[in-house]
Amino acid sequence: MSVTIIGTVAFDSIHTPFGTHDRILGGSATYAGTAASIFSPVHLVSIVGADFHQEHLDYFSARGISTEGIFCSPGQTFHWKGAYSGDMNQATTLQTDLNVLLEFDPQVPASAASSRIVILGNIDPSLQRRAVAQFKHPELVILDSMNFWIQSQKDSLLETLQLIDVLILNDQEIKLLTGEDNLIRAIPRVMTMGPKRVIVKKGEHGAIMYNGSEFFAVPAMPLDQVVDPTGAGDSFAGGIAGYLAGQPVLDESAFRSAVLIGTLVASFTVQDFSLNRLKLIDKTSLLEAVAQFNRLTQMEAICL
Amino acid sequence: MSVTIIGTVAFDSIHTPFGTHDRILGGSATYAGTAASIFSPVHLVSIVGADFHQEHLDYFSARGISTEGIFCSPGQTFHWKGAYSGDMNQATTLQTDLNVLLEFDPQVPASAASSRIVILGNIDPSLQRRAVAQFKHPELVILDSMNFWIQSQKDSLLETLQLIDVLILNDQEIKLLTGEDNLIRAIPRVMTMGPKRVIVKKGEHGAIMYNGSEFFAVPAMPLDQVVDPTGAGDSFAGGIAGYLAGQPVLDESAFRSAVLIGTLVASFTVQDFSLNRLKLIDKTSLLEAVAQFNRLTQMEAICL
Repeated sequence: MSVTIIGTVAFDSIHTPFGTHDRILGGSATYAGTAASIFSPVHLVSIVGADFHQEHLDYFSARGISTEGIFCSPGQTFHWKGAYSGDMNQATTLQTDLNVLLEFDPQVPASAASSRIVILGNIDPSLQRRAVAQFKHPELVILDSMNFWIQSQKDSLLETLQLIDVLILNDQEIKLLTGEDNLIRAIPRVMTMGPKRVIVKKGEHGAIMYNGSEFFAVPAMPLDQVVDPTGAGDSFAGGIAGYLAGQPVLDESAFRSAVLIGTLVASFTVQDFSLNRLKLIDKTSLLEAVAQFNRLTQMEAICL
Repeated sequence: MSVTIIGTVAFDSIHTPFGTHDRILGGSATYAGTAASIFSPVHLVSIVGADFHQEHLDYFSARGISTEGIFCSPGQTFHWKGAYSGDMNQATTLQTDLNVLLEFDPQVPASAASSRIVILGNIDPSLQRRAVAQFKHPELVILDSMNFWIQSQKDSLLETLQLIDVLILNDQEIKLLTGEDNLIRAIPRVMTMGPKRVIVKKGEHGAIMYNGSEFFAVPAMPLDQVVDPTGAGDSFAGGIAGYLAGQPVLDESAFRSAVLIGTLVASFTVQDFSLNRLKLIDKTSLLEAVAQFNRLTQMEAICL
């Protein structure tokens, strides 16, 4: 019951009020893969340059993340440089070196083509389509995207949305995609574009899910220190996919639990730079976080 | 077990994408009082002008809201004109005619002075102090304020914060009051200013409460149509106070239920202009909303 993730493996240079780190391991597939591997075998489909470190490949392997689908090109690895300040809710991009990402042509290895769950990470929508076509009969295809693709490749993105089951976006992206200011009106409009389920990341405000007939809402864990928000959304998606991969039935109940798990996993991710905190999550710490969440939201029945 | 509310009774002129209404009944005490009166007898302490309508006073009386503490002055009633657009999260103030509010000197009638719960609505902090001094031994004093007082009367507000039990602000106001960008770090700092409990309104994102040792979080009901957000915060506070007034013990469990009730009451308020929707709430519709909330947040136990 594996998860395959198509996305970026990157070097990130990040500045936050808590420090500056140059060329640390990042990328959507890296975060999502690390999160999913808490629960499930994972395959990554990505591209890196000749400057990529063997120690990072060893890190993936040690977590049960197959790197067979990571193509090593002679160029330089994708590099993103960004900064966060204030309430840390928005990154400021300082530099984007696409490098080998410009030649990315996702090739899904035979061992990954029968994955139960596929995450199409935040890359060019046409590459997402090329990737998904290589899977045999995935039970669930999850798509992540961002404002850049919504604005520059909307038609292509709409084409890709026809091929997927679950769309994960943040609230601003959902509003941008639909032109609707009201999130709750925007979400059903997104469903008419193809997805059977929409999950909205709201950062410090938690998440909302819609399955076409009912909403589910979950608050985020209160965090008094966000060290580096990079990868929160990717580890949210990875946590959801990884948890679902281990469930016997992918029904509403499984998805609700998965969204909580994704929220909790993301809350670990942002507590340190890169994968430093995320990679330490085990089932014990996650169950403790679930217990904390239960205390956070616990209420008695209301009589009036 | 009555609730007394010190605040404004106003005429509001409001423009939203759903329409324009001139000089409709509004004000913090009006909204909070209407919400609290779902559960409890209410006393209002406020001021209106000679232009105030008898029908509005009759409306209060019919709801069990005593108007004995509403002083009728020869001048004009406080008038606020505002507009909402886009995501409707922020009002743009177009005009503020303080009128009789400039002479407001809250006089708490004898019948109200023994109220169990007091809401010091959003007015000058020095008036809030003058009002609270007139109560015998309120079990709970709840204070609301806003960025205007935080910026222009901070020292006076800090003095008032020493006299209260529960502070209700929105997330931006909490950050402004403390100078902290992180809400979860800001909240404990607010507690050092006097309140024993802080409740943070987050609008469409729900609410968070902190009692000095633990957080409580509740998402908002998904609303696909927000017609007029005016009074949402006041009816949130009024719903909390009214519900608590009917509880035998004001413990953490009662407060958690109260915050949910406040959230649900506010979600009704914003579905129409003025009190049009709020005043129709009865215990049956509220219990139905509680059931909807339970479906919205329902999850099975998580096994990993």
